[in-house]
Amino acid sequence: MTLPLQEEEPNSTLPNIPERSLRSLLTDEDLDGLIAFFDLLSASESLRAVTQLSAKERDHLITILPSEIAAELVEEAPNEVAVDLVERLEADKAAEIMDTLGSDLQADVIGEMDQEEAEAILAEMTSEHAQDVRRLAAYDDDTAGGLMIAEVFTFRQSDSISQVLLQLASEEEEDERLRGQHPYVIDEDNKPIGVVSLRSLITSRRSASLSSIMVPAVTVLVSTPLDDLVDLFDKHSFLGLPVVEADGSLAGVVSRSAVEEALHERSEMQSLKRQGIVGDELRSMPLLLRSRRRLSWLSANIVLNIIAASVISAYEETLAAVIAIAIFLPMVSDMSGCSGNQAVGVSMRELTLGLVTSRDVFRVWLKEASIGIVNGIVLGLLIGMVAWIWKGNAYLGLVIGLALAINTVIAVSIGGIVPILLKRFGQDPAVASGPLLTTVTDMAGFFLVLSLAAFFMPQLLGA
Amino acid sequence: MTLPLQEEEPNSTLPNIPERSLRSLLTDEDLDGLIAFFDLLSASESLRAVTQLSAKERDHLITILPSEIAAELVEEAPNEVAVDLVERLEADKAAEIMDTLGSDLQADVIGEMDQEEAEAILAEMTSEHAQDVRRLAAYDDDTAGGLMIAEVFTFRQSDSISQVLLQLASEEEEDERLRGQHPYVIDEDNKPIGVVSLRSLITSRRSASLSSIMVPAVTVLVSTPLDDLVDLFDKHSFLGLPVVEADGSLAGVVSRSAVEEALHERSEMQSLKRQGIVGDELRSMPLLLRSRRRLSWLSANIVLNIIAASVISAYEETLAAVIAIAIFLPMVSDMSGCSGNQAVGVSMRELTLGLVTSRDVFRVWLKEASIGIVNGIVLGLLIGMVAWIWKGNAYLGLVIGLALAINTVIAVSIGGIVPILLKRFGQDPAVASGPLLTTVTDMAGFFLVLSLAAFFMPQLLGA
Repeated sequence: MTLPLQEEEPNSTLPNIPERSLRSLLTDEDLDGLIAFFDLLSASESLRAVTQLSAKERDHLITILPSEIAAELVEEAPNEVAVDLVERLEADKAAEIMDTLGSDLQADVIGEMDQEEAEAILAEMTSEHAQDVRRLAAYDDDTAGGLMIAEVFTFRQSDSISQVLLQLASEEEEDERLRGQHPYVIDEDNKPIGVVSLRSLITSRRSASLSSIMVPAVTVLVSTPLDDLVDLFDKHSFLGLPVVEADGSLAGVVSRSAVEEALHERSEMQSLKRQGIVGDELRSMPLLLRSRRRLSWLSANIVLNIIAASVISAYEETLAAVIAIAIFLPMVSDMSGCSGNQAVGVSMRELTLGLVTSRDVFRVWLKEASIGIVNGIVLGLLIGMVAWIWKGNAYLGLVIGLALAINTVIAVSIGGIVPILLKRFGQDPAVASGPLLTTVTDMAGFFLVLSLAAFFMPQLLGA
Repeated sequence: MTLPLQEEEPNSTLPNIPERSLRSLLTDEDLDGLIAFFDLLSASESLRAVTQLSAKERDHLITILPSEIAAELVEEAPNEVAVDLVERLEADKAAEIMDTLGSDLQADVIGEMDQEEAEAILAEMTSEHAQDVRRLAAYDDDTAGGLMIAEVFTFRQSDSISQVLLQLASEEEEDERLRGQHPYVIDEDNKPIGVVSLRSLITSRRSASLSSIMVPAVTVLVSTPLDDLVDLFDKHSFLGLPVVEADGSLAGVVSRSAVEEALHERSEMQSLKRQGIVGDELRSMPLLLRSRRRLSWLSANIVLNIIAASVISAYEETLAAVIAIAIFLPMVSDMSGCSGNQAVGVSMRELTLGLVTSRDVFRVWLKEASIGIVNGIVLGLLIGMVAWIWKGNAYLGLVIGLALAINTVIAVSIGGIVPILLKRFGQDPAVASGPLLTTVTDMAGFFLVLSLAAFFMPQLLGA
């Protein structure tokens, strides 16, 4: 191992290898060239190059690549892409690649496949691995069971320290996955009864038995949800926690980094869901699948838009009389929609940080309403003056400004509390908050502008 | 340590302690009660309780709490809240709390304070800590220098294995922070020349010198950006990497978990920035600060909205002739805005995953345009039929449907490539993509509907 990064400019990137060269290496079936190609690139660069191949080329590539390199690509890929890389391969080749992955990733990939493909691959995998995968794939994604790995570093009470040290020092590939785990002590029923600290391992006599130095282990149930795991790892400095079944038997170990990664992924998914991107869309997926997924959200949006637009429809006479109002209708609904979305964003963040709960609805509403009054007055004055100057009609300015001011208060109030209420009633606030908010702010905005215009009609026409 | 979580129901929460009780404990200055209160709550629950106190109560609480408990609150808090907890304290109390934090957190908190307050606190801190903080606070947040801790587990070549083991087994508070680090070997110029694996530490003679078992260390520069660190930790299984100054001397260690946390934070910030929430807004901050921050984004939005609305203004005659058009104007611009935002979301995700770079603009455009054509046709047909049936005018349906179809293609094309282009030109795609996209889709939507309406005017009026 040399010191590559110290010698380079911090921003220097790897040699810029065009995708064409991967394609030509593949056409020539130049295996050494392909190995050298992936050796040069970082994991994410490698994956990027592979996702730009056609599905057929990708299958060909994975089939001829050595399993370890293929496994590295699968490891780097988001789950959906990982499945795509493996599922069309012959079952034995797929099983060969799967066998080299960690049990958590095996379960994630197998869990996303069709039943039939999954069974074909499991049949070809090492029976021990296949058994672990079946077990792990049954747990929910965002629980300790779904996040743990099945490989655990276990010993008996009667084992000695030197036995642990011997296995710590082992060069076996399988043992690699145990790195960073503490040695756990289990009883004859496979129940974890203790954990051994590195410190006591190093400072005690090598012939001492583990029972003399172990301390009781903190364990979590397979059903423990992600949020509780985050709290636990926040509170303690453990690198991993043993996970137990309902009967207390050891099922696996959930690591701090698996929990952090799941948290990161969830927050990314939430931000995408708010735009109606559900289920890890990547551009390497088939067009019609992506199109259908996006449409399912957009077409629900049409209905909401029609409901909001029906408010305008009810006031066609007012509009016909003062056509200038039409210019400001979208502006009022859009501006207050933005204000409301800011409140949604802050609530989502505070929910994630655990700073608000459903008990705080009133407090949040009070805070948001105050900000809505301040910002509503400022924005209402600004846009009211624009309308006045633009159309030379003070009453038009009054109508538009007043409507925006009131609608801003409505929008931030709803934006602030809707995510909290949705969460209380077991709905996903990331998906539903946005469309709900937009519909209400559009309807209220149109209604306020048009009914104020109807009220001030004589002045609007007289000026 | 007992087995608390194994005994409880997985979803059982901690005893529901009302905030009033914290307030009354505080009024009574019941120190034992306060300590018991925070002992019962998880870190995030504690923080939530504290953020609901008034600023004055908060200062009082932090002043009377033992420094270790206060430090736990500061550690759990987002940076902005951490500063708020510390900055109004007497300098000596603040310094006492700061001294118990890790150097990375010390630097983050001090870095956010006013110069004057920071200096007052630094003057009261242990001089060694103060020196580290001054050094760390100078680095950019999202670089190895900004993410590293200054506490490093260093040895000389001539040191023996037993000296390392002795320090590993030390119970000193300061040494706690070194847990999970590998022992690094430095030369007389403080340059890292090697790293010692746990395996060789355990399996070699205790009298052996480190020079006989160390391997060369992979190092990163203080200026190495977060993205490169993510790649490195992806590629290797290191728990930490030594960070060096430009001259090669050891500056600190950046840990895998610090990098993962920074990545998580960045993706959350990006999702908030897209709604114009800049700078970690929390509802515990002062109203006018929050209001000003939100307004700064909203008022830029007014200008963009006026530009878009001026398109409507240019077609007032067309609108006056066919007033029903006004109903569909916001619908067309809103629907295509949503489609465009989906494309922005996918591009942001692919940028984060490293699956697209600025070289892929054309490929991304092609992929998005295809989805735009499919979805444009579907949505255009849907909304065209709605318009036709609603207003009984087939030409109205044609105008609205055609406008939405074309505008959907425009919106997804722009939404897909704008984040990539912004990133290429060194702008933050999270902040600018949304407003840019909305303005263009609004303008194009209004223009398409109104100019198509002007073109089909005879048919629209004749039907």
